Amino acid sequence: MSLIVQKYGGTSVGDMVRIQNVARRVIKTYEAGHKVVVVLSAMAGVTDHLIQMAEVITDRPNRREMDMLMATGEQQTVALMAIALESMGYKSRSLLGFQANIRTDEHRMSAKIQHIDAKPIMDLLAQNTIVIIAGFQGVDAMGNITTLGRGGSDTSAVAIAAAIKADVCEIFTDVDGVYTADPGIVPKARKLKCVTHDVMLEMSGLGAKVLQIRSVEFAKKFDVPVHVRSSFNEEEGTMIVGEDRDMEKMVVAGVTFKKDDARVTITKVPDQPGIAARIFSAVAEIGVSVDMIIQNTRAEHLTDITFTVPKTDYDRTMEVVQQVAGKIGAQSVLGDKDIAKVSITGVGMKTNHGVAAKMFSILAQEGINIMMISTSEIRISCVVEEKYAELATRCLHTAFGLDKE
Amino acid sequence: MSLIVQKYGGTSVGDMVRIQNVARRVIKTYEAGHKVVVVLSAMAGVTDHLIQMAEVITDRPNRREMDMLMATGEQQTVALMAIALESMGYKSRSLLGFQANIRTDEHRMSAKIQHIDAKPIMDLLAQNTIVIIAGFQGVDAMGNITTLGRGGSDTSAVAIAAAIKADVCEIFTDVDGVYTADPGIVPKARKLKCVTHDVMLEMSGLGAKVLQIRSVEFAKKFDVPVHVRSSFNEEEGTMIVGEDRDMEKMVVAGVTFKKDDARVTITKVPDQPGIAARIFSAVAEIGVSVDMIIQNTRAEHLTDITFTVPKTDYDRTMEVVQQVAGKIGAQSVLGDKDIAKVSITGVGMKTNHGVAAKMFSILAQEGINIMMISTSEIRISCVVEEKYAELATRCLHTAFGLDKE
Repeated sequence: MSLIVQKYGGTSVGDMVRIQNVARRVIKTYEAGHKVVVVLSAMAGVTDHLIQMAEVITDRPNRREMDMLMATGEQQTVALMAIALESMGYKSRSLLGFQANIRTDEHRMSAKIQHIDAKPIMDLLAQNTIVIIAGFQGVDAMGNITTLGRGGSDTSAVAIAAAIKADVCEIFTDVDGVYTADPGIVPKARKLKCVTHDVMLEMSGLGAKVLQIRSVEFAKKFDVPVHVRSSFNEEEGTMIVGEDRDMEKMVVAGVTFKKDDARVTITKVPDQPGIAARIFSAVAEIGVSVDMIIQNTRAEHLTDITFTVPKTDYDRTMEVVQQVAGKIGAQSVLGDKDIAKVSITGVGMKTNHGVAAKMFSILAQEGINIMMISTSEIRISCVVEEKYAELATRCLHTAFGLDKE
Repeated sequence: MSLIVQKYGGTSVGDMVRIQNVARRVIKTYEAGHKVVVVLSAMAGVTDHLIQMAEVITDRPNRREMDMLMATGEQQTVALMAIALESMGYKSRSLLGFQANIRTDEHRMSAKIQHIDAKPIMDLLAQNTIVIIAGFQGVDAMGNITTLGRGGSDTSAVAIAAAIKADVCEIFTDVDGVYTADPGIVPKARKLKCVTHDVMLEMSGLGAKVLQIRSVEFAKKFDVPVHVRSSFNEEEGTMIVGEDRDMEKMVVAGVTFKKDDARVTITKVPDQPGIAARIFSAVAEIGVSVDMIIQNTRAEHLTDITFTVPKTDYDRTMEVVQQVAGKIGAQSVLGDKDIAKVSITGVGMKTNHGVAAKMFSILAQEGINIMMISTSEIRISCVVEEKYAELATRCLHTAFGLDKE
């Protein structure tokens, strides 16, 4: 007998027929002798509809009240799921964020889970009740309803699994696992049987959209095994685990790309202590997150500084950087929105030399110029011209032996 | 400066434009120097839509989960109203049943309010915040969400007004007050300036659909002045108060009729102690509420017993009564679904003699046969053939001087 958390996304509970299908799937797990906690998203389209209603009233709706409004979507699905399970003869009980005591900070619309009280959930499970918990929502210390941001139900599920020490957290979604690359771009992409939390964390941050990145952070922190699988078939998906149990022996586990960033370059910056701090303090002050940063020292005590920011923050950033550049006596500020970041990720890189060199030469063979490079222990990212993103991804996928036979 | 509770029904908040209109009306009251608590229903149609979704799954949905599901309707309107008020520059805060601590019993889908904690509401009002509270919902001692049954938002509003000792509870609705009769049936019906809680209580029970009857019970119990008025114009509506302050000097305040009941007669029942108890215990056991009961003693120690039950319970009742009639040796069981109860109500009856006699003679003049009679201190009801309901209502309305000039 295992303790299993199952999370179903908005498409999987998109209408009454699908809700009943999910109920039957939950029952199958329950009948196999397991204790089951189900975490649900809102029905597909519902959250967007709620946001649209608010936007009819104002384009800057109060964020506390948006949490109040959006939390109703999940409340509806958990009630409907419990109704479906009860109608099929199974004891079940829905719980909202405040009832399961999913305590978060006070960050409106992107709250972070701080604590979950296992007791109310465990008490219900001890009575052989199937527990249905609203994803995406929590409650702050003052009793205000909070929401966790897009994809937050994944994080709810993993955090609940951690709190009740579940054996596995199954994430049912409309894809059937984690792939070596986006199959829409790379037709030969293969489904991975298994990846580590670390690799998944890098891949999520780099553009693989299977899981909300915070859910993977939680899974890593509390060592929760996560099973990403399809809600539309019975096949095994991808296990995301702490360390390579059955890990496939691949140097590179996946190739991802991301087109959300823009590049800013400040040329001929006087190479003095404190200069970089001035630039990045100014950017931080307007609330923009900087991703990659590269500094090349030139002759004559001058240096070029290049960094990337989200495309949506590009205009604000350029404005601020131009002011700072003037003050510090830099030559010019250049910007480029047509860039993409292509990354390869895998634990095997730790012990395999020459992976970076191989990546650079593959891109060179295709005539793709590399603008920026950044690396971690298990990842190498290159910024290239946006138009080459898909081509680069496919070439790297093939060259690192990821294509399916 | 007054403390005012304003309740707006589903039609008044039926779309985003109307929600903004209500927001402007709330602001007008606030700007006049009052403290305002707003209680809202779900947008028109939303509760029905939620019920329909559940009914796709099963025709007997779990009632706890129906409460969970239906409570989302009000949650959406309070959030949207707070968004509207904030967007217009006014501090406002929405509260759900659990946040305002609207404690109810555990009766699913028709819970009764037991207690409301004034403190969270008063604290917000003290900060000049407009407080928006979800009607229709509460929370039981175990933290389960409960709902109060159809029209429950009226009761929420009056109970909140009682808890915070509001000066008045304004019920904004799609009619502009309480009328001497249904204006759809009696074109000459007049709007009442003022009625007592007692009269309103009788009239609600007798078919006037302006307010949920439980809300009037609350208003009477805690002596809350209620102002029923239109949300679509600025006119004064009807004040419902404890005793005739400005009460109009009318013997009869209103004429109502109700077609929801059916009549059951058991003839030639042996007139022995305990016989009536056997009959009505059997009816109570199947969960049917009996309204009027009349017993006529005949000769030969035999009696006829007649009573009314809701039409929807008629078939079940007849079945049970026929069994009991056989056992107790009664002659026969007769039933009649084509009846209506016509009532006149007014505090003036207490001190005016001959009102009943006048009612009976008016009906007689029109050739309307009276089947059953029941009276209270401030009400007289006659059961007549269903087809005469409207005619009887109009005649009584004219004869008791209620027609407008």
